[in-house]
Amino acid sequence: MLPSMVEALLRGEGAVQRRALAKAITLLESTLPDHRAQADELLTALLPHSGKSLRIGISGVPGVGKSTFIETLGLHLIGLGHRVAVLAVDPSSSVSGGSILGDKTRMEKLSVNERAFIRPSPSSGTLGGVAEKTRETMLICEAAGYDIVIVETVGVGQSETAVAGMTDMFVLMQLPNAGDDLQAIKKGVMELADLVVINKADIDEDAATRARAQITSALRIFSQQGRALVWAPKVIQLSALQGDGVQRFWDEVLAFRNSQQAAGELAARRQHQALAWMWERIETGLKQAFREDAQVKALLPGLVKDVEQGRIAASTAARRLLDAQGN
Amino acid sequence: MLPSMVEALLRGEGAVQRRALAKAITLLESTLPDHRAQADELLTALLPHSGKSLRIGISGVPGVGKSTFIETLGLHLIGLGHRVAVLAVDPSSSVSGGSILGDKTRMEKLSVNERAFIRPSPSSGTLGGVAEKTRETMLICEAAGYDIVIVETVGVGQSETAVAGMTDMFVLMQLPNAGDDLQAIKKGVMELADLVVINKADIDEDAATRARAQITSALRIFSQQGRALVWAPKVIQLSALQGDGVQRFWDEVLAFRNSQQAAGELAARRQHQALAWMWERIETGLKQAFREDAQVKALLPGLVKDVEQGRIAASTAARRLLDAQGN
Repeated sequence: MLPSMVEALLRGEGAVQRRALAKAITLLESTLPDHRAQADELLTALLPHSGKSLRIGISGVPGVGKSTFIETLGLHLIGLGHRVAVLAVDPSSSVSGGSILGDKTRMEKLSVNERAFIRPSPSSGTLGGVAEKTRETMLICEAAGYDIVIVETVGVGQSETAVAGMTDMFVLMQLPNAGDDLQAIKKGVMELADLVVINKADIDEDAATRARAQITSALRIFSQQGRALVWAPKVIQLSALQGDGVQRFWDEVLAFRNSQQAAGELAARRQHQALAWMWERIETGLKQAFREDAQVKALLPGLVKDVEQGRIAASTAARRLLDAQGN
Repeated sequence: MLPSMVEALLRGEGAVQRRALAKAITLLESTLPDHRAQADELLTALLPHSGKSLRIGISGVPGVGKSTFIETLGLHLIGLGHRVAVLAVDPSSSVSGGSILGDKTRMEKLSVNERAFIRPSPSSGTLGGVAEKTRETMLICEAAGYDIVIVETVGVGQSETAVAGMTDMFVLMQLPNAGDDLQAIKKGVMELADLVVINKADIDEDAATRARAQITSALRIFSQQGRALVWAPKVIQLSALQGDGVQRFWDEVLAFRNSQQAAGELAARRQHQALAWMWERIETGLKQAFREDAQVKALLPGLVKDVEQGRIAASTAARRLLDAQGN
């Protein structure tokens, strides 16, 4: 089954490839151990063919206009000859449900375009799990020839960090509101941004200009410390609804990619991301095995109570549990 | 040996207790397994007698005047009848060395006072390790009757978070500089603060007043979101060098403690901190055991190279390593 799936993904056309893509993603998202082993085999087979896309992360609060912007951008890029995959990281989607319908109806024209592939967030629970599936889906889309991958997130909890950790460029969309930028600074999202887009700039131009000045000065302070930057993060204004500024946005993306590539930063960033991803999965796996250990399960409730009620020091409890695991 | 040490810690006087304290801390900081077991026994014996202090974290960049302030505050509190322990969390001290001498010479009068105990940062390497020793030392100081514990940190990396995670109240000291507050917001330290102190306010009163207004408005935005607050973080100005404002600082600390205690927040915060500490130590222990596993050690270098060079997906490599551990 796997060789034919690999074949259909790499060289299939139209509906054939699309079906293989859907099947492969279903395999990745399966929790059956047997499926997981097949998924790993599939990933290893496809990996040499992946990595050729430009990976763009786009974050912003609900209402900032992400879907409208991604639809406009996606159609624009398809017009330029690209194939565009849109993935989502939304750890809350398992609660809210129905995000498949959501994404596809919100991007009406893009979702029916043959050269686009839209996949809602996997709904497997934790952010780490959701991010892992999205990363793997991205690799498969790349192997299938999608040369632009857009990963969107609404910014629940740490999801921006996860998306910035799997993309080449991280774009933060902001409304022209005072305070919106301070929220982003506070949450540590601003410093992840390679590009900040102030959307709906047409509604209140003065506010947009003020926001742009504020964000620019904030970004300048961030970049003063830390590593010497090849790329100084920029701020642009646009109106996704009017289709205004999409080409300018794309010019900035290409300028970013070129400067990063020339400096060897793009490859370095991906290598760093892959290793960080490996360690993140290892940590998650270690914690899961710990929590599922029979001895740990037997001792944990009592020790938690002892720690809560001050009968045993937390570090002593930790050492006892670690000693108990597997014994 | 342990029973006599417990006895000397709980009921010893003057030099006898002081010697027992020094010995107990040495035991805690030892890496010998046998010592570690004794230290756990000691902690468990002392735990019922600990927890009776007010734990205050104080953070601020070098030059903000922490030592001068802590010396003034400590002497003031001793004058009010308290016993004061000053501990430090400085993960860089193992590199810089000599912080014992540093702390004691920087707090000349406090360090020779009979009712004060000053202990420099343990120099055991990682922040997690340093924080663990400091937490345990705090418990022992409390059992020995120190009813005010001050934990200071210079704010290297995540050390503010560690200190906020072991104290009842977290105080951030700032200079009356524009930009200083933005740095604190950016690093996520501002939102940890229960109280912000603008020191050296006497040098430039106008700048201090401006900084106070800026920080107050930033704090207001933070507290709008998140939990309903029993305590709204405050900003005060003072001059540690002139001794000006120390009583006002202490009044704020007591107001904070009273409001928190009345709402049951103080106990809840400590319970939460203890459990978080337990899990933090478990995670560290799991990772350490993983890295020291013979099979993992054998496979890791090759798999890291495979991941770096895109021959295997990071998640696949993680699963292989997890499967290999212990086999």
